[in-house]
Amino acid sequence: MKIGIYGLGRFGAFWGDQLSKIGTVVGYSRNKDREVPKSITKVSEEEVLSSDVIIICVAISSMENFLISIKDKIKPGTLLMDTCSVKVYPVELMKKILPPWANIIGTHPMFGPDSGKLGVAGLPIVISEVRATKEQYNFWIEKFNQLNLSVIEMTPDEHDKEAAYTQGITHFIGRTLADLHLKRSSISTTGYNSLLDIIKLTCNDEYQLFLDLQKYNSYTSLMRTDLKNSLNRILNIIESEGDISNG
Amino acid sequence: MKIGIYGLGRFGAFWGDQLSKIGTVVGYSRNKDREVPKSITKVSEEEVLSSDVIIICVAISSMENFLISIKDKIKPGTLLMDTCSVKVYPVELMKKILPPWANIIGTHPMFGPDSGKLGVAGLPIVISEVRATKEQYNFWIEKFNQLNLSVIEMTPDEHDKEAAYTQGITHFIGRTLADLHLKRSSISTTGYNSLLDIIKLTCNDEYQLFLDLQKYNSYTSLMRTDLKNSLNRILNIIESEGDISNG
Repeated sequence: MKIGIYGLGRFGAFWGDQLSKIGTVVGYSRNKDREVPKSITKVSEEEVLSSDVIIICVAISSMENFLISIKDKIKPGTLLMDTCSVKVYPVELMKKILPPWANIIGTHPMFGPDSGKLGVAGLPIVISEVRATKEQYNFWIEKFNQLNLSVIEMTPDEHDKEAAYTQGITHFIGRTLADLHLKRSSISTTGYNSLLDIIKLTCNDEYQLFLDLQKYNSYTSLMRTDLKNSLNRILNIIESEGDISNG
Repeated sequence: MKIGIYGLGRFGAFWGDQLSKIGTVVGYSRNKDREVPKSITKVSEEEVLSSDVIIICVAISSMENFLISIKDKIKPGTLLMDTCSVKVYPVELMKKILPPWANIIGTHPMFGPDSGKLGVAGLPIVISEVRATKEQYNFWIEKFNQLNLSVIEMTPDEHDKEAAYTQGITHFIGRTLADLHLKRSSISTTGYNSLLDIIKLTCNDEYQLFLDLQKYNSYTSLMRTDLKNSLNRILNIIESEGDISNG
């Protein structure tokens, strides 16, 4: 099986390397100087698009333009699988833009080069059947199981609802804490070290991924409102108890 | 050496148990039904106050009344050591209220029954010389080193400044996240699990400890303002990028 990775950014290169355990991986990046793991052979856009399965590793915000640019180059029966951190938005785009003869599976590998640096065994991947044969769908569940991933079947909507209050809130807290320029301290408590871990686990990713997670998952708007309300509730409790430092 | 623990709440009982490795530990609690580890002998208030060293494990907000209630019962040369999570406020109270013949060392063991459940080796304890002999002070540094603690000498002011942006912010985030009722999820990322760890590490403590940390450390007011500003800055970035879910 030839697996084509479209987009060799931080995540695309990492995911392609993992997938090389179950097939031959070729990859294409617009940036021709991009360095990739030895397990991925860099090829032309045309060759990636002729793979048995095309794994889309472009930014969520680039999906629409990307799909428009490739839609006329897809051969009948090709399977396209996105890897976006939100699901409703890219899945709707794929259904709308890709030709009817292209098959579609939505995935969200919920890890990256940081959280998966010691291996991906046990880490979750969400899979959504969108427009694929039962055989294709079951084949990929089996392949992800072979990588020892924790495979979770969900609809795009179920995914976005749950991800807003797990991954979405984590990235939001991570970016907020990073904005505070917190540093390691000689009096770091165990809890504070977990706080610093969150910064590290979220802020190595491109800022665009963070923004896209918040912008393209419609449930994160509610999450941010809830978070702001909780923060204000705790601030009010402290104030109503009388902050002695303010007299 | 007889070590007297005044206050056998969650932290007092834990700390007394640790200190039993370096001396005979007696303890007093107003709550006579309070269960304590076998390593601590429950005794009368009078007996605890006659120990070589009195370790004060009462809530920060109770310190003033506590010190007033015991000040006339302290024998000359007795060493009193508080364990409050803030330092300027209780140290000033001890200097003001305790008789001049009482010696004083400020400490902040920066761990508790949760973070220290697998042992306290390597965990930090802050120590401040307030009104003690050089011998007493060095003796306790040595004793804490014997417990394999990471002993950090700081002034009360240095401690409070640093703790506001480490322990203070961690507890604030933990309480805010707890208010959101976040739950474990089948699609928990590594970062999200760290977020849940923070809730666990901060919310098992009494709510009073959280409030006291925020109220009696004058630097936490600035920390909360900084945190709120960072949160709003990130919210504004997301909004200015245009939240597509809001049209």
